[in-house]
Amino acid sequence: MSRWEPNAPERLQQAAFELYTERGYDQTTVTEIATRAGLTERTFFRHFADKREVLFDGGDRFRATLVDPVDTAPASATPLEAVAAGIEAAGSVFPAVELVRRRHALILANPELQERELIKLASVAVSLSEALRRRGVPDTSAELAAETGVTVLRIALARWIEDPAERPWDVHVHEAMDELCRLTAERIVAAQA
Amino acid sequence: MSRWEPNAPERLQQAAFELYTERGYDQTTVTEIATRAGLTERTFFRHFADKREVLFDGGDRFRATLVDPVDTAPASATPLEAVAAGIEAAGSVFPAVELVRRRHALILANPELQERELIKLASVAVSLSEALRRRGVPDTSAELAAETGVTVLRIALARWIEDPAERPWDVHVHEAMDELCRLTAERIVAAQA
Repeated sequence: MSRWEPNAPERLQQAAFELYTERGYDQTTVTEIATRAGLTERTFFRHFADKREVLFDGGDRFRATLVDPVDTAPASATPLEAVAAGIEAAGSVFPAVELVRRRHALILANPELQERELIKLASVAVSLSEALRRRGVPDTSAELAAETGVTVLRIALARWIEDPAERPWDVHVHEAMDELCRLTAERIVAAQA
Repeated sequence: MSRWEPNAPERLQQAAFELYTERGYDQTTVTEIATRAGLTERTFFRHFADKREVLFDGGDRFRATLVDPVDTAPASATPLEAVAAGIEAAGSVFPAVELVRRRHALILANPELQERELIKLASVAVSLSEALRRRGVPDTSAELAAETGVTVLRIALARWIEDPAERPWDVHVHEAMDELCRLTAERIVAAQA
Protein backbone atom coordinates (compact mmCIF):
# COMPACT_ATOMS: atom_id res chain seq x y z
CA MET A 1 0.00 0.00 0.00
CA SER A 2 1.47 3.36 -0.95
CA ARG A 3 2.18 5.91 1.76
CA TRP A 4 0.12 8.50 -0.02
CA GLU A 5 -3.59 7.71 0.05
CA PRO A 6 -5.94 9.88 -1.97
CA ASN A 7 -8.66 11.44 0.20
CA ALA A 8 -7.60 9.42 3.24
CA PRO A 9 -9.22 11.80 5.80
CA GLU A 10 -12.54 11.84 3.93
CA ARG A 11 -12.53 8.05 3.50
CA LEU A 12 -11.79 7.56 7.21
CA GLN A 13 -14.50 10.01 8.22
CA GLN A 14 -17.00 8.31 5.94
CA ALA A 15 -16.08 4.88 7.36
CA ALA A 16 -16.27 6.18 10.94
CA PHE A 17 -19.70 7.71 10.36
CA GLU A 18 -20.97 4.46 8.89
CA LEU A 19 -19.65 2.33 11.74
CA TYR A 20 -20.74 4.73 14.50
CA THR A 21 -24.24 4.74 13.01
CA GLU A 22 -24.40 0.98 12.41
CA ARG A 23 -23.01 -0.30 15.71
CA GLY A 24 -22.59 2.75 17.94
CA TYR A 25 -19.66 4.98 18.82
CA ASP A 26 -18.50 3.04 21.88
CA GLN A 27 -18.51 -0.29 20.04
CA THR A 28 -16.31 0.92 17.16
CA THR A 29 -12.49 0.65 17.14
CA VAL A 30 -9.91 2.58 15.12
CA THR A 31 -8.82 -0.69 13.48
CA GLU A 32 -12.35 -1.27 12.25
CA ILE A 33 -12.58 2.25 10.86
CA ALA A 34 -9.30 1.88 8.99
CA THR A 35 -10.30 -1.54 7.61
CA ARG A 36 -13.67 -0.25 6.42
CA ALA A 37 -11.88 2.64 4.66
CA GLY A 38 -9.40 0.23 3.06
CA LEU A 39 -6.54 1.91 4.91
CA THR A 40 -4.16 1.08 7.75
CA GLU A 41 -4.39 2.05 11.40
CA ARG A 42 -1.14 3.97 10.89
CA THR A 43 -2.81 6.09 8.22
CA PHE A 44 -5.67 6.78 10.62
CA PHE A 45 -3.30 8.14 13.25
CA ARG A 46 -1.50 10.26 10.67
CA HIS A 47 -4.75 12.22 10.31
CA PHE A 48 -6.62 11.94 13.63
CA ALA A 49 -5.55 11.78 17.29
CA ASP A 50 -8.31 9.31 18.21
CA LYS A 51 -11.75 8.11 17.19
CA ARG A 52 -13.43 11.09 18.81
CA GLU A 53 -11.49 13.58 16.68
CA VAL A 54 -12.80 12.07 13.45
CA LEU A 55 -16.06 13.88 14.21
CA PHE A 56 -14.36 17.17 15.11
CA ASP A 57 -11.84 17.47 12.34
CA GLY A 58 -11.32 20.89 10.83
CA GLY A 59 -12.01 22.83 14.02
CA ASP A 60 -9.37 25.47 13.20
CA ARG A 61 -10.66 25.89 9.65
CA PHE A 62 -14.22 26.12 10.95
CA ARG A 63 -13.25 28.82 13.44
CA ALA A 64 -11.32 30.78 10.80
CA THR A 65 -14.31 30.61 8.45
CA LEU A 66 -16.54 32.19 11.09
CA VAL A 67 -14.01 34.78 12.25
CA ASP A 68 -12.83 36.12 8.85
CA PRO A 69 -16.18 37.79 7.98
CA VAL A 70 -16.19 39.49 11.40
CA ASP A 71 -12.72 40.89 10.72
CA THR A 72 -13.61 42.06 7.22
CA ALA A 73 -17.15 43.36 7.86
CA PRO A 74 -17.59 47.05 6.95
CA ALA A 75 -16.87 49.46 9.78
CA SER A 76 -20.55 50.42 9.76
CA ALA A 77 -21.68 46.86 10.62
CA THR A 78 -23.12 46.45 14.13
CA PRO A 79 -21.60 43.72 16.36
CA LEU A 80 -24.54 41.39 15.72
CA GLU A 81 -24.43 42.00 11.96
CA ALA A 82 -20.71 41.17 11.90
CA VAL A 83 -21.34 37.98 13.88
CA ALA A 84 -24.28 37.04 11.65
CA ALA A 85 -21.98 37.30 8.63
CA GLY A 86 -19.62 34.85 10.32
CA ILE A 87 -22.40 32.40 11.15
CA GLU A 88 -23.69 32.55 7.56
CA ALA A 89 -20.20 31.80 6.27
CA ALA A 90 -20.16 28.58 8.32
CA GLY A 91 -22.49 27.19 5.65
CA SER A 92 -19.65 27.20 3.12
CA VAL A 93 -17.66 24.59 5.05
CA PHE A 94 -20.48 22.26 6.10
CA PRO A 95 -20.48 18.90 4.34
CA ALA A 96 -23.71 17.60 2.78
CA VAL A 97 -26.73 18.11 5.05
CA GLU A 98 -27.20 14.33 5.31
CA LEU A 99 -23.72 13.98 6.80
CA VAL A 100 -24.28 16.89 9.22
CA ARG A 101 -27.58 15.31 10.31
CA ARG A 102 -25.90 11.97 11.00
CA ARG A 103 -23.05 13.65 12.90
CA HIS A 104 -25.57 15.62 14.98
CA ALA A 105 -27.48 12.45 15.93
CA LEU A 106 -24.24 10.72 16.93
CA ILE A 107 -23.18 13.59 19.16
CA LEU A 108 -26.61 13.77 20.84
CA ALA A 109 -26.40 10.05 21.64
CA ASN A 110 -23.04 10.22 23.42
CA PRO A 111 -22.14 12.37 26.49
CA GLU A 112 -18.40 12.26 25.69
CA LEU A 113 -19.07 13.67 22.22
CA GLN A 114 -21.50 16.24 23.61
CA GLU A 115 -18.79 17.54 25.95
CA ARG A 116 -16.37 17.84 23.04
CA GLU A 117 -19.01 19.71 20.99
CA LEU A 118 -19.68 22.13 23.88
CA ILE A 119 -15.95 22.83 24.17
CA LYS A 120 -15.69 23.42 20.41
CA LEU A 121 -18.60 25.86 20.45
CA ALA A 122 -17.21 27.66 23.51
CA SER A 123 -13.92 28.15 21.66
CA VAL A 124 -15.81 29.49 18.63
CA ALA A 125 -17.53 32.03 20.94
CA VAL A 126 -14.15 33.10 22.36
CA SER A 127 -12.75 33.59 18.83
CA LEU A 128 -15.78 35.60 17.71
CA SER A 129 -15.57 37.72 20.84
CA GLU A 130 -11.86 38.44 20.21
CA ALA A 131 -12.64 39.40 16.61
CA LEU A 132 -15.32 41.83 17.79
CA ARG A 133 -12.91 43.40 20.27
CA ARG A 134 -10.46 43.90 17.40
CA ARG A 135 -13.26 45.96 15.80
CA GLY A 136 -13.37 48.14 18.92
CA VAL A 137 -16.50 46.57 20.42
CA PRO A 138 -16.44 46.86 24.25
CA ASP A 139 -15.94 43.64 26.26
CA THR A 140 -19.50 43.01 27.45
CA SER A 141 -21.07 43.70 24.06
CA ALA A 142 -18.46 41.57 22.34
CA GLU A 143 -19.10 38.61 24.64
CA LEU A 144 -22.86 38.94 24.43
CA ALA A 145 -22.87 39.22 20.64
CA ALA A 146 -20.43 36.30 20.28
CA GLU A 147 -22.37 34.01 22.63
CA THR A 148 -25.60 35.03 20.94
CA GLY A 149 -24.02 34.17 17.59
CA VAL A 150 -23.17 30.66 18.80
CA THR A 151 -26.73 30.24 20.10
CA VAL A 152 -28.04 31.24 16.66
CA LEU A 153 -25.56 28.82 15.05
CA ARG A 154 -26.83 25.93 17.19
CA ILE A 155 -30.51 26.66 16.63
CA ALA A 156 -30.04 27.27 12.90
CA LEU A 157 -28.13 23.99 12.58
CA ALA A 158 -30.82 21.98 14.35
CA ARG A 159 -33.48 23.54 12.09
CA TRP A 160 -31.46 23.24 8.88
CA ILE A 161 -30.85 19.51 9.19
CA GLU A 162 -34.53 18.86 9.98
CA ASP A 163 -36.07 21.17 7.38
CA PRO A 164 -38.42 19.15 5.15
CA ALA A 165 -38.35 22.04 2.63
CA GLU A 166 -34.53 21.85 2.52
CA ARG A 167 -34.15 25.63 2.54
CA PRO A 168 -30.51 26.79 2.49
CA TRP A 169 -28.34 27.48 5.54
CA ASP A 170 -28.48 31.29 5.41
CA VAL A 171 -32.29 31.25 5.49
CA HIS A 172 -32.16 29.39 8.79
CA VAL A 173 -29.53 31.77 10.19
CA HIS A 174 -31.73 34.76 9.30
CA GLU A 175 -34.80 33.10 10.79
CA ALA A 176 -33.06 32.32 14.09
CA MET A 177 -31.60 35.84 14.26
CA ASP A 178 -34.99 37.41 13.46
CA GLU A 179 -36.67 35.24 16.06
CA LEU A 180 -34.14 36.37 18.65
CA CYS A 181 -34.74 40.01 17.74
CA ARG A 182 -38.48 39.41 18.05
CA LEU A 183 -38.00 37.92 21.54
CA THR A 184 -35.97 40.88 22.76
CA ALA A 185 -38.29 43.41 21.09
CA GLU A 186 -41.20 41.76 22.90
CA ARG A 187 -39.39 42.29 26.18
CA ILE A 188 -38.76 45.96 25.37
CA VAL A 189 -42.43 46.52 24.46
CA ALA A 190 -43.58 44.67 27.59
CA ALA A 191 -41.26 46.77 29.79
CA GLN A 192 -42.73 49.98 28.31
CA ALA A 193 -46.34 48.85 28.75
CA MET B 1 -15.46 11.53 66.06
CA SER B 2 -19.23 11.42 65.87
CA ARG B 3 -20.90 10.24 62.65
CA TRP B 4 -22.91 13.42 62.44
CA GLU B 5 -20.77 16.43 61.61
CA PRO B 6 -22.39 19.85 61.74
CA ASN B 7 -22.06 21.70 58.42
CA ALA B 8 -19.79 19.01 57.00
CA PRO B 9 -20.47 19.91 53.33
CA GLU B 10 -19.79 23.61 53.94
CA ARG B 11 -16.61 22.86 55.89
CA LEU B 12 -15.37 20.54 53.15
CA GLN B 13 -16.15 23.08 50.45
CA GLN B 14 -14.39 25.80 52.39
CA ALA B 15 -11.32 23.58 52.91
CA ALA B 16 -11.32 22.55 49.24
CA PHE B 17 -11.53 26.17 48.09
CA GLU B 18 -8.62 27.11 50.34
CA LEU B 19 -6.42 24.24 49.18
CA TYR B 20 -7.27 24.62 45.48
CA THR B 21 -6.39 28.29 45.73
CA GLU B 22 -3.21 27.78 47.78
CA ARG B 23 -1.64 24.87 45.91
CA GLY B 24 -3.79 24.32 42.84
CA TYR B 25 -6.62 21.93 42.00
CA ASP B 26 -4.44 19.16 40.52
CA GLN B 27 -2.09 19.13 43.51
CA THR B 28 -4.84 18.70 46.13
CA THR B 29 -6.08 15.32 47.37
CA VAL B 30 -9.36 14.36 49.04
CA THR B 31 -7.41 13.30 52.15
CA GLU B 32 -5.91 16.76 52.42
CA ILE B 33 -9.32 18.40 52.02
CA ALA B 34 -10.83 16.21 54.77
CA THR B 35 -7.87 16.85 57.09
CA ARG B 36 -8.05 20.60 56.58
CA ALA B 37 -11.77 20.48 57.40
CA GLY B 38 -11.11 18.41 60.53
CA LEU B 39 -13.13 15.52 59.06
CA THR B 40 -12.47 12.05 57.66
CA GLU B 41 -12.14 10.96 54.04
CA ARG B 42 -15.22 8.80 54.62
CA THR B 43 -17.23 11.88 55.54
CA PHE B 44 -16.01 13.56 52.35
CA PHE B 45 -17.33 10.72 50.21
CA ARG B 46 -20.64 10.72 52.06
CA HIS B 47 -21.21 14.20 50.59
CA PHE B 48 -19.26 14.39 47.30
CA ALA B 49 -18.46 11.88 44.55
CA ASP B 50 -14.95 13.30 43.98
CA LYS B 51 -12.88 16.44 44.39
CA ARG B 52 -14.34 17.97 41.23
CA GLU B 53 -17.90 17.78 42.55
CA VAL B 54 -17.06 19.91 45.59
CA LEU B 55 -17.14 22.87 43.20
CA PHE B 56 -20.40 21.82 41.53
CA ASP B 57 -22.45 20.85 44.54
CA GLY B 58 -26.07 21.88 44.54
CA GLY B 59 -26.53 21.61 40.77
CA ASP B 60 -30.11 20.31 41.14
CA ARG B 61 -31.03 23.00 43.63
CA PHE B 62 -29.47 25.63 41.37
CA ARG B 63 -31.46 24.40 38.39
CA ALA B 64 -34.70 24.29 40.40
CA THR B 65 -34.10 27.85 41.62
CA LEU B 66 -33.85 29.08 38.03
CA VAL B 67 -36.74 27.01 36.69
CA ASP B 68 -39.36 27.74 39.38
CA PRO B 69 -39.80 31.44 38.46
CA VAL B 70 -40.27 30.44 34.80
CA ASP B 71 -43.03 28.02 35.81
CA THR B 72 -44.74 30.57 38.06
CA ALA B 73 -44.34 33.71 35.93
CA PRO B 74 -47.67 35.37 35.03
CA ALA B 75 -49.23 34.15 31.79
CA SER B 76 -48.64 37.61 30.33
CA ALA B 77 -44.84 37.37 30.76
CA THR B 78 -42.90 37.05 27.50
CA PRO B 79 -40.43 34.13 27.17
CA LEU B 80 -37.46 36.39 27.83
CA GLU B 81 -39.15 38.02 30.84
CA ALA B 82 -39.85 34.60 32.33
CA VAL B 83 -36.24 33.54 31.78
CA ALA B 84 -34.95 36.82 33.22
CA ALA B 85 -36.97 36.13 36.39
CA GLY B 86 -35.21 32.75 36.67
CA ILE B 87 -31.76 34.25 36.16
CA GLU B 88 -32.46 36.91 38.79
CA ALA B 89 -33.53 34.22 41.25
CA ALA B 90 -30.12 32.54 40.87
CA GLY B 91 -28.79 35.34 43.06
CA SER B 92 -30.65 33.92 46.06
CA VAL B 93 -28.55 30.73 46.06
CA PHE B 94 -25.13 32.20 45.32
CA PRO B 95 -22.71 32.11 48.25
CA ALA B 96 -20.80 35.27 49.19
CA VAL B 97 -19.41 37.08 46.16
CA GLU B 98 -15.85 36.47 47.38
CA LEU B 99 -16.44 32.70 47.26
CA VAL B 100 -18.04 32.90 43.80
CA ARG B 101 -15.07 34.94 42.57
CA ARG B 102 -12.60 32.36 43.88
CA ARG B 103 -14.61 29.49 42.37
CA HIS B 104 -14.74 31.31 39.02
CA ALA B 105 -10.96 31.80 39.01
CA LEU B 106 -10.39 28.13 39.83
CA ILE B 107 -12.64 26.98 36.99
CA LEU B 108 -10.98 29.31 34.47
CA ALA B 109 -7.57 27.89 35.43
CA ASN B 110 -8.49 24.25 34.82
CA PRO B 111 -9.78 22.73 31.53
CA GLU B 112 -11.39 19.76 33.35
CA LEU B 113 -13.39 22.13 35.54
CA GLN B 114 -14.28 24.31 32.55
CA GLU B 115 -15.76 21.28 30.78
CA ARG B 116 -17.82 20.46 33.85
CA GLU B 117 -19.05 24.05 34.05
CA LEU B 118 -20.04 24.04 30.36
CA ILE B 119 -22.01 20.83 30.92
CA LYS B 120 -23.74 22.31 33.97
CA LEU B 121 -24.75 25.44 32.06
CA ALA B 122 -25.94 23.38 29.09
CA SER B 123 -28.19 21.40 31.42
CA VAL B 124 -29.53 24.65 32.91
CA ALA B 125 -30.40 25.80 29.36
CA VAL B 126 -32.22 22.52 28.68
CA SER B 127 -34.24 22.87 31.91
CA LEU B 128 -35.16 26.49 31.14
CA SER B 129 -36.17 25.52 27.62
CA GLU B 130 -38.40 22.72 28.95
CA ALA B 131 -40.01 25.12 31.41
CA LEU B 132 -40.76 27.57 28.59
CA ARG B 133 -42.32 24.80 26.50
CA ARG B 134 -44.55 23.98 29.47
CA ARG B 135 -45.75 27.60 29.15
CA GLY B 136 -46.69 26.92 25.53
CA VAL B 137 -43.68 28.67 23.99
CA PRO B 138 -42.82 27.09 20.60
CA ASP B 139 -39.61 25.02 20.36
CA THR B 140 -37.34 27.48 18.55
CA SER B 141 -38.34 30.44 20.72
CA ALA B 142 -37.98 28.35 23.87
CA GLU B 143 -34.47 27.23 22.95
CA LEU B 144 -33.37 30.70 21.88
CA ALA B 145 -34.74 32.35 25.03
CA ALA B 146 -33.22 29.65 27.28
CA GLU B 147 -29.78 29.81 25.65
CA THR B 148 -29.93 33.59 25.73
CA GLY B 149 -30.76 33.40 29.42
CA VAL B 150 -27.67 31.29 30.10
CA THR B 151 -25.55 33.76 28.12
CA VAL B 152 -26.93 36.59 30.27
CA LEU B 153 -26.25 34.51 33.40
CA ARG B 154 -22.59 34.01 32.41
CA ILE B 155 -21.99 37.65 31.49
CA ALA B 156 -23.79 38.94 34.58
CA LEU B 157 -21.77 36.60 36.80
CA ALA B 158 -18.45 37.73 35.34
CA ARG B 159 -19.46 41.38 35.85
CA TRP B 160 -20.92 40.89 39.32
CA ILE B 161 -17.79 39.30 40.79
CA GLU B 162 -15.58 42.04 39.30
CA ASP B 163 -17.78 45.03 40.12
CA PRO B 164 -15.76 47.53 42.21
CA ALA B 165 -19.05 49.24 43.18
CA GLU B 166 -20.41 45.89 44.46
CA ARG B 167 -23.85 46.48 42.96
CA PRO B 168 -26.27 43.59 43.58
CA TRP B 169 -26.83 40.60 41.31
CA ASP B 170 -30.13 41.70 39.76
CA VAL B 171 -28.61 45.01 38.60
CA HIS B 172 -26.06 43.03 36.59
CA VAL B 173 -28.74 40.73 35.16
CA HIS B 174 -30.76 43.76 34.02
CA GLU B 175 -27.68 45.42 32.53
CA ALA B 176 -26.71 42.33 30.55
CA MET B 177 -30.29 41.84 29.35
CA ASP B 178 -30.59 45.52 28.38
CA GLU B 179 -27.28 45.37 26.57
CA LEU B 180 -28.48 42.34 24.61
CA CYS B 181 -31.70 44.16 23.69
CA ARG B 182 -29.65 47.14 22.55
CA LEU B 183 -27.50 44.90 20.34
CA THR B 184 -30.51 43.34 18.66
CA ALA B 185 -32.32 46.68 18.33
CA GLU B 186 -29.20 48.08 16.62
CA ARG B 187 -29.42 45.25 14.11
CA ILE B 188 -33.10 45.94 13.45
CA VAL B 189 -32.43 49.67 12.92
CA ALA B 190 -29.45 48.89 10.66
CA ALA B 191 -31.55 46.45 8.59
CA GLN B 192 -34.22 49.11 8.08
CA ALA B 193 -31.72 51.83 7.08
